[in-house]
Amino acid sequence: MDAIRNGWFSELSPLWPGQSMSLEVEEVLYHERSKYQDVLVFRSKTYGNVLVLDGVIQCTERDEFSYQEMIAHLPLMSHPNPKKVLLIGGGDGGVLREIAKHSCVESVVQCEIDDKVIEVSKRFLPKMACGYDNPKLTVNIGDGFDFMKKNKGSFDIIITDSSDPIGPAEALFQRSYYELMKEALRPGGIVCTQGECMWLHLDLIRDMQEFCSSLYQHVDYSYCTIPTYPSGQIGFVLCSTNPDTNFMDPVRKFTEEQLEELNIRYYNADIHRASFVLPQFVKKALKAPKPKVNNQPQEDGQNGEK
Amino acid sequence: MDAIRNGWFSELSPLWPGQSMSLEVEEVLYHERSKYQDVLVFRSKTYGNVLVLDGVIQCTERDEFSYQEMIAHLPLMSHPNPKKVLLIGGGDGGVLREIAKHSCVESVVQCEIDDKVIEVSKRFLPKMACGYDNPKLTVNIGDGFDFMKKNKGSFDIIITDSSDPIGPAEALFQRSYYELMKEALRPGGIVCTQGECMWLHLDLIRDMQEFCSSLYQHVDYSYCTIPTYPSGQIGFVLCSTNPDTNFMDPVRKFTEEQLEELNIRYYNADIHRASFVLPQFVKKALKAPKPKVNNQPQEDGQNGEK
Repeated sequence: MDAIRNGWFSELSPLWPGQSMSLEVEEVLYHERSKYQDVLVFRSKTYGNVLVLDGVIQCTERDEFSYQEMIAHLPLMSHPNPKKVLLIGGGDGGVLREIAKHSCVESVVQCEIDDKVIEVSKRFLPKMACGYDNPKLTVNIGDGFDFMKKNKGSFDIIITDSSDPIGPAEALFQRSYYELMKEALRPGGIVCTQGECMWLHLDLIRDMQEFCSSLYQHVDYSYCTIPTYPSGQIGFVLCSTNPDTNFMDPVRKFTEEQLEELNIRYYNADIHRASFVLPQFVKKALKAPKPKVNNQPQEDGQNGEK
Repeated sequence: MDAIRNGWFSELSPLWPGQSMSLEVEEVLYHERSKYQDVLVFRSKTYGNVLVLDGVIQCTERDEFSYQEMIAHLPLMSHPNPKKVLLIGGGDGGVLREIAKHSCVESVVQCEIDDKVIEVSKRFLPKMACGYDNPKLTVNIGDGFDFMKKNKGSFDIIITDSSDPIGPAEALFQRSYYELMKEALRPGGIVCTQGECMWLHLDLIRDMQEFCSSLYQHVDYSYCTIPTYPSGQIGFVLCSTNPDTNFMDPVRKFTEEQLEELNIRYYNADIHRASFVLPQFVKKALKAPKPKVNNQPQEDGQNGEK
């Protein structure tokens, strides 16, 4: 267990060279290799229990709410009446917990490739895995690609809660995946995917924006702060097939009472709007060509900063 | 040099227990104890040169621009015609560089207690220390408290670019400091101070908001993202003596051409507005009583979310 040394877990990856976030470990609760990846759970000194896949922090009990709330509520609040939701990944259950806060949702299907992640989350991350209590949920252990090929035109919202584009999740950041998601949507459907960090992966984000703009009517990038993701920030790629969608202006809203009752700690309508406002260097880099809904390859007419 | 081990610098502090950011070191460029603090500069593998005071990262060449631009432009763009600026701290010169981008500013005084920081920044951080080329600048090596006592009613803008509230900068987070700043302001003046991290120091931020609200007409909290500050985020406390100030709506704006010409990479008018929009847990914690401009102690009627 090289990542743990002298009582500290350190997160190292070629995706963020030269920098590392470390958390002090109180006890290793679980460590095994699943069929797909290395699965580690430890109790940290100040961030609660922590799930780590292939050496990368997936969630901590202390700060998971910002990511889980944003990746769920950004697309769900941008759709006038989301009834059928597909979640790809999200084995810890946190996104399911947030989806369940929308009473209009009638059914949720989850495709998680690694059932070990679900098992471990139920055991060690009960505040996230409570999402599995949702009676509207069908869990499908398997490949999201296969599932979407067999379920075209089926979903109002598709959320991809994936790990980073290295190892099992690499294909989830490519054009063919966004084509499949588009085909699996009902008319007016919306997708929201983990969109990496603007401080680290601006080239990747720009590429995604570009191929998404050739597939969807509206494409936008949003972000939240989260201390235990690399550089303290994570983004979301949102795409809509509905020409009326304006991601920056949610069509539905939680009242202050609902935010309180539903224990929503990061998201609110103002944060929804503000999360699409980009720092100048990101805005410049993502100044994408106008969306063209066809299958012609886009010309790259931009000069990204840096 | 305990903080450097196996070629990595790790930032440990009782202010953020159980977590640590590490940067890979290529070469230690400077390490000495000044009269006030331990001063370290190293060349990192992926963040350029890095200045560290008492074991805490102050700035890296790669991401300093977000903090320096925001702490300067937020107050300067909130004032209709800032002519006289006081900077407390800011020895690396980065904030001075940003202040110089405002042609309306006629004079800038800097009070930096530790001339070693200035000397080292000029040597190893030339892109920040270029702020010292400003012909409108007067540098005063000494204590900001003393200087302000002797210069009442003198400044339109006071910016405090300090380290964390431990060691030499501790007094800069207390009520008496905000009283002194208020007295050093000209009518309608504005102060902006480093405001710590909402993920780590919400109690401290709430306390500051409370005593500031009893001193100033308007008090607000804003933040930006920055990978190498603890938890990837840093805040700003803004206070105004002008009853017409609305921090969320800047009274002056850079054009897109100016942003480009002046090499502004993080700040723009939309980011200015969005930076005051707080996640729900922060909004709840900072739901401060209405500002009362008197010297009565405030009652604490709030329950902060953790």
